[in-house]
Amino acid sequence: MNQLRRLLLLVLTSASLALGDEGMWLLNDFPSAKVQAAYGFAPSQQWLDRVRLGAVRLANGCSASFVSTHGLVMTNHHCVRECVQDLSTSKDDYLEKGFFAAAQKDERRCANIEANQLVSITDVTDRIKAATAGKSGDAFATALRQESARIEGTCATGPKVRCDVVNLFHGGKFNLYTYRRFQDVRLVFAPEFPMAAFGGYADNFEFPRYGFDVGFLRVYDDGAPVDTPDALPWAATQAGEGDLVFAAGNPGGTERVQTTEQLALQRDVVLPWIRVRLAELRGTLLQFSAGSPELFRISRARIRTVENGLKALGGRRAWLAEPANFERKRSEDAELRAAVKKDPAKEARFAGAWAGIAQAVQVEREIFVRHQLAESRAGIPSDLFEYARLLVRAAEERPKPSPERLREYGDARLPALEARLLRPVPAPRSLELVLVTFGLRSLRDTFGPDDPLVQAAIGKRSPEDVAREAVEGTHLDDPKTREALWKGGAAAVAASTDPMIALARRLDPQARAIRKDFESRVDGALARNGELLFQAAVAVRGTSSYPDATLTLRLSYGTIAGWTESGKQIPAMTRLSGLYDRNTGQFPFAVAPTWLAARPKLDPEMPFDIATTNDIIGGNSGSPLINRNGEVVALIFDGNRGSLGGDYGYDAATNRAVALHGQAILEGLEKVYGAGRLVKEIRSRGPN
Amino acid sequence: MNQLRRLLLLVLTSASLALGDEGMWLLNDFPSAKVQAAYGFAPSQQWLDRVRLGAVRLANGCSASFVSTHGLVMTNHHCVRECVQDLSTSKDDYLEKGFFAAAQKDERRCANIEANQLVSITDVTDRIKAATAGKSGDAFATALRQESARIEGTCATGPKVRCDVVNLFHGGKFNLYTYRRFQDVRLVFAPEFPMAAFGGYADNFEFPRYGFDVGFLRVYDDGAPVDTPDALPWAATQAGEGDLVFAAGNPGGTERVQTTEQLALQRDVVLPWIRVRLAELRGTLLQFSAGSPELFRISRARIRTVENGLKALGGRRAWLAEPANFERKRSEDAELRAAVKKDPAKEARFAGAWAGIAQAVQVEREIFVRHQLAESRAGIPSDLFEYARLLVRAAEERPKPSPERLREYGDARLPALEARLLRPVPAPRSLELVLVTFGLRSLRDTFGPDDPLVQAAIGKRSPEDVAREAVEGTHLDDPKTREALWKGGAAAVAASTDPMIALARRLDPQARAIRKDFESRVDGALARNGELLFQAAVAVRGTSSYPDATLTLRLSYGTIAGWTESGKQIPAMTRLSGLYDRNTGQFPFAVAPTWLAARPKLDPEMPFDIATTNDIIGGNSGSPLINRNGEVVALIFDGNRGSLGGDYGYDAATNRAVALHGQAILEGLEKVYGAGRLVKEIRSRGPN
Repeated sequence: MNQLRRLLLLVLTSASLALGDEGMWLLNDFPSAKVQAAYGFAPSQQWLDRVRLGAVRLANGCSASFVSTHGLVMTNHHCVRECVQDLSTSKDDYLEKGFFAAAQKDERRCANIEANQLVSITDVTDRIKAATAGKSGDAFATALRQESARIEGTCATGPKVRCDVVNLFHGGKFNLYTYRRFQDVRLVFAPEFPMAAFGGYADNFEFPRYGFDVGFLRVYDDGAPVDTPDALPWAATQAGEGDLVFAAGNPGGTERVQTTEQLALQRDVVLPWIRVRLAELRGTLLQFSAGSPELFRISRARIRTVENGLKALGGRRAWLAEPANFERKRSEDAELRAAVKKDPAKEARFAGAWAGIAQAVQVEREIFVRHQLAESRAGIPSDLFEYARLLVRAAEERPKPSPERLREYGDARLPALEARLLRPVPAPRSLELVLVTFGLRSLRDTFGPDDPLVQAAIGKRSPEDVAREAVEGTHLDDPKTREALWKGGAAAVAASTDPMIALARRLDPQARAIRKDFESRVDGALARNGELLFQAAVAVRGTSSYPDATLTLRLSYGTIAGWTESGKQIPAMTRLSGLYDRNTGQFPFAVAPTWLAARPKLDPEMPFDIATTNDIIGGNSGSPLINRNGEVVALIFDGNRGSLGGDYGYDAATNRAVALHGQAILEGLEKVYGAGRLVKEIRSRGPN
Repeated sequence: MNQLRRLLLLVLTSASLALGDEGMWLLNDFPSAKVQAAYGFAPSQQWLDRVRLGAVRLANGCSASFVSTHGLVMTNHHCVRECVQDLSTSKDDYLEKGFFAAAQKDERRCANIEANQLVSITDVTDRIKAATAGKSGDAFATALRQESARIEGTCATGPKVRCDVVNLFHGGKFNLYTYRRFQDVRLVFAPEFPMAAFGGYADNFEFPRYGFDVGFLRVYDDGAPVDTPDALPWAATQAGEGDLVFAAGNPGGTERVQTTEQLALQRDVVLPWIRVRLAELRGTLLQFSAGSPELFRISRARIRTVENGLKALGGRRAWLAEPANFERKRSEDAELRAAVKKDPAKEARFAGAWAGIAQAVQVEREIFVRHQLAESRAGIPSDLFEYARLLVRAAEERPKPSPERLREYGDARLPALEARLLRPVPAPRSLELVLVTFGLRSLRDTFGPDDPLVQAAIGKRSPEDVAREAVEGTHLDDPKTREALWKGGAAAVAASTDPMIALARRLDPQARAIRKDFESRVDGALARNGELLFQAAVAVRGTSSYPDATLTLRLSYGTIAGWTESGKQIPAMTRLSGLYDRNTGQFPFAVAPTWLAARPKLDPEMPFDIATTNDIIGGNSGSPLINRNGEVVALIFDGNRGSLGGDYGYDAATNRAVALHGQAILEGLEKVYGAGRLVKEIRSRGPN
């Protein structure tokens, strides 16, 4: 066997590792033949279009689905948690006791939730390619940004339409996604947080599992529920082990073709840094929350978000740190590089990808932390500071022509930004003080007191003092103040003496410079060379497969199935009786009084949570699981530990999505929460 | 050039990288000729013996030196910080305002400090080799432990003698170190913590630096200061840039010959895990300390310890994560392996090392976290829990013959253990509650509620409840209670209803089993194969060099020198004026009132902190820096960021020790703190 043949065999072997139920497929390019071969069922384009229209994307990065023709939307509790927290008071703590609008009039607006329905997909690859032809570097990035903004601007004809140019296959294809926007979204039902997150940090990303992680919303227009004839029907028959299931949702991001340098950067720099910071924030917030029941109440949702990130990124890092996984990815990269080298045409076209990526990775190693602390939301993880930065930036950006603005300030995106800024949600000062202090202290601890960014932030003062001044003195917790500054524009913001605005103003020039540098030398370089790398993989492996996840609608397929771990068989389903067995009476293993009371009415053998082989990732939370009839059978809310390497690859042996079984949802609504009106409404949708 | 020659050249090249001022040398095997060649000065054996007797080891893992003939000991503030904290009350907060005993009678006992002087070194290699000959695995480990205990037992003729069999060169040599023990150690002087740790977390491990990190102790016997004729003289002339300096101290541990698997384990598993935990603990404690000035007072020393660990391990991890460093270590390993393979005799003798280490590393990947949480002090980082575990274990261990006990319970070590247990130091319940909760919550979060260890710790209860019960109900904060249980032995401990004792009792069987497993499959396997690996390096590289650090006395040499970082020249020294320039008036950059008041009396150009090329590591804190006359010129208290990879290697270009200049010490004592009596005492020692 000669070298080349051996090499090809290796490439094929590594490609075949990527089979099983792998894939986050486009709804306009679904591998129906492949599914037919594996499962004897091929979704038609009509089937796929129905699913697309029944699926919903929440603007907070979650997935959902219409489950009644009157605008009822099903998603996860953790996707509406922020809203539940915002609606709660110390008297009515809906996070603790749950929320159910007994009548439609009791449904309450979620100021921070917007829902989108993907109504059409158009190919705009030619327009983008024409605009960027012959350009490289900053000129390329600018042309791409400006042409995208132009396309989106023409498309977005009003506040009820959202248009996004979506970059697929790392620049291989550009599609314009047109969404119907629903901005009046109301909370209909949320169980108790302790039931939704049963098992807390310990059980998160684990299975067997007993989370009742469901929530219902309703979309309104002009004060009335919207008609949603595209709603998915609910399955009449329960799904069971071995059943074929599809997950329709919006996976947030994957990078399955990466060079060894990129993977090492994640393993050695990015993930460790973020984790250490999240761990410190977790400790800070847990200790804060121990101060009083009220402090616990106002911080628990935030704590859960932090803990979820900490454990998810821990799993991702652990996956990369596992020598077998890293070695597999390393050899995939080496094989791809070798295959390109063998072919002069490919070498001429693709060789630059590796060098370009290596250089960008080296830059990222140097400036990653500064970019995180100066520019990302995680830097100063405070709502009030975010408002301040947004106002300061908007004042500078809005006077510019739309295509020249920072992308999130473009005309097509401005409504979402404004909605986020003006939402009337609480920002408790006690918690904000902790978060601003945390951010400023990190800056000082990381770069030292002489650093220009630190000087701008705190000068010769302490982080604690500057944070106290900013949080105690600001009026940005009042939506009217924010609205006045938003409407007042540059003049109002420049004249403002609000200390939080002043802090954002002091930081902004450096933060912008760092962002620009990062976008040009890291993001831009990685995008350009990532495109090349991905195209090289396509050219060598001979199939276009599915694009990396882009927080847009995808369909994955799989079956309800357990797996084997350290020689132990993990079941495909848990049963209700297991929930009661696990009850300790103490958070986070306390079964709520509602479920204790309803126990006699429920079948102990009822399926509760299930594991499936669907290839999902963060962003898929809230995805409906659909059977071959296009009917809802369950609700994705998590993945197992083996799914946490999903950014880098899919391993059919251990990667499992975790979902709440449809029967548990309906039985819970009806018999536990007395929410029969929802069950009736869902059932009234009828079959397809 | 043939393969072998090229390989040899590579080996030589990589060995020559290890030159410069590298080395933590034995005082009975010092490379005087090498130093002579480099610096034109060769320390004689008499010179070395004097330094050995002038050096002091503190049992808390620090270094120190005798600096007067009346038992005066100089070390770092951070080495006496725990004592200063223990002596403080909310009224007299010596951590905040510093401590100076104006007269000898005011010097105050440090219950937790023991000082040791290394009076003799004897080779016991033959005895150990005879006892272990032909043995392997557990039998080898047992024979080694038992023969060591026998030798130490015979040597330790009374409570004033401490004897340790020290394993050098990874089993290549065994030396019996006999120490004079000083158990009555009193605090003489400590500056304000904010001066000792000037710059706090941000400046730790950085340079330029302005820490005044010095403290003085005095050893007593029968109520009177001990005569210490071996004290090191103080230099009459100030040291300056380029001067040759020696550091005599006790570096805690290095592993400079490691396989790639071992390094990857550190980079990917061990350091990330510890750092995430320390970060969470830091957040917890900072938030705790923000609760009130008193909570700040009782937790600040602990916070500093946690922060120091977090930053030190961060630097270590970053060093390993730097591709050039890892690649250098990886290729050193590969070259050594290849060189062994080329020689059938070496291959027969050493080949097993790599496989053995790989296997042990695989086991450690699996059980490291469980071992940390169940058995290490970091698991439940509480003093009261440590007392409980110690009492529970002592009850079981003490009835056994000494050589069969867990090593720290052997007769020769029991006095130190007893002293630690019975020290009359405060353990504030508010802080203890936070620490026990932290530990128990980690257990539950990591292994889940069904794990047997978690079941033993908390059963079906919450970590918060079990911690509250244990901390609120325990009487172990009273030294008399501890003494009664210590003296009462197994019967008293078994009969105790103290809830902290009960917690330790519940955990102990599993903790012991995990320790045993870890010692046998990880520690034991790594020790045996690490010995082989190290011997292979010696055989291939042809020189025995210096042994890895073992928390015993070593001498390093170097010069006072800056370095270049990212093209920027870092100076070798800071000056007093820089301290005042850096003053913000806010902790941790607040210059203390004493130094502000004394400013007119001080020369602004006075050297303050210095950087040197000495090869040091944790444990060297408090080491005297000595000139060629054997006189003290400065005091090591830290390393720079480049020193934090010192576990794995020494890079002369960037690795720097950080010391407090001798002039600053004496001027500070005399003109800032009015401690002229100490300066007089130090100066009265006279020249050698």
